[in-house]
Amino acid sequence: MAPGAAGGATSSHRLEFWFDFASTYSYVAAARIEAEAGAAQVAIVWRPFLLGPLFARQGWNDSPFNLNPARGRYMWRDLQRLTARHGLPWRRPSRFPRSSVLAARVALTGLDQDWLPGVVRALYHANFAADLDIADRRVVADLLRDLGLPADDLLGRAVHQDTKDHLRRLTDEAWERGLFGAPSFVAGQEVFWGQDRLGEALDWARQPGRDDAV
Amino acid sequence: MAPGAAGGATSSHRLEFWFDFASTYSYVAAARIEAEAGAAQVAIVWRPFLLGPLFARQGWNDSPFNLNPARGRYMWRDLQRLTARHGLPWRRPSRFPRSSVLAARVALTGLDQDWLPGVVRALYHANFAADLDIADRRVVADLLRDLGLPADDLLGRAVHQDTKDHLRRLTDEAWERGLFGAPSFVAGQEVFWGQDRLGEALDWARQPGRDDAV
Repeated sequence: MAPGAAGGATSSHRLEFWFDFASTYSYVAAARIEAEAGAAQVAIVWRPFLLGPLFARQGWNDSPFNLNPARGRYMWRDLQRLTARHGLPWRRPSRFPRSSVLAARVALTGLDQDWLPGVVRALYHANFAADLDIADRRVVADLLRDLGLPADDLLGRAVHQDTKDHLRRLTDEAWERGLFGAPSFVAGQEVFWGQDRLGEALDWARQPGRDDAV
Repeated sequence: MAPGAAGGATSSHRLEFWFDFASTYSYVAAARIEAEAGAAQVAIVWRPFLLGPLFARQGWNDSPFNLNPARGRYMWRDLQRLTARHGLPWRRPSRFPRSSVLAARVALTGLDQDWLPGVVRALYHANFAADLDIADRRVVADLLRDLGLPADDLLGRAVHQDTKDHLRRLTDEAWERGLFGAPSFVAGQEVFWGQDRLGEALDWARQPGRDDAV
């Protein structure tokens, strides 16, 4: 299996999944993508990154859900509905957005590992179902240990300079490739923004350009 | 048929469709909603309104697609894909956004008329497939005549003070009820934003709260 590709690995079709552990809609996408990509026989290329620097480039010093109260009110209600629809546990976090730097770095240490999807799910569950601070090293360590993983080793690798640089590179790449929010799905050069576009992104990954009249 | 309700009128289920004739994604929603609401046996309550005043309340003096280049680039590409996917004609308008005040007022004169859906489609086609200026009285007059409608009479009613006040009231109501963008679908008190949420909005209209764990 190529580094960074996991799930449906026998397929030649690939879809990049760009997500931020602070992003509510990324939680829904992360919960959906394994089953739906599996059914579509599309391999997931996991791409943890940071929304904060992309927001800064768009002129925002906070989540647009905090800066725009109407948009924020809608999002919180929408997440109640969406998580119920998809059978996901949900508790509105007492702090939003939480720093997702540590969580993203931990995920980056596992891009080519079978444990990655489980850790991604556990980190989202901590933030959006258990209301735990995923910026807290102890929270992440407990979560890794509960999954039977070598927490100290992984956390050590997570804060290694190579991992920090990797996360910075991915975040820069996201912006350069036209991403501005999360979750985003990328098939080749085609970007699809929002958990509600997962199905179309998977269709495109299977058959690039099938929708494209141009 | 109750004023403002058209399509699937024998159903007790109703979904409000809030749209702006300047909105690209509203074009896609307007093209989809009759068939999908009909299949779901949900009556459409047509709600033309103006996004501009809602954008102003969010601190924007232009479309967010113009203010935010990354978001704008994505939108234009996405519209190519979406219109191809749904088999809709598409030409990127040479001016965006166009003033949709006249078009919205014309639509308001037909809320309880069988001709409304056809006029809505024709206005969107003019803006987003034929690159015509829907703010131009002559363009709208031609379009109404082509549909066999009394253009002078309808345009006279469109600029009547009652119609102007009606549009202002609807736009105020949109903001008061939590809308911040278009298209939006409202079932009871539940708002769904974006053409990609039409299916969920129709599900909710048929069975309020079925997704709601709260």
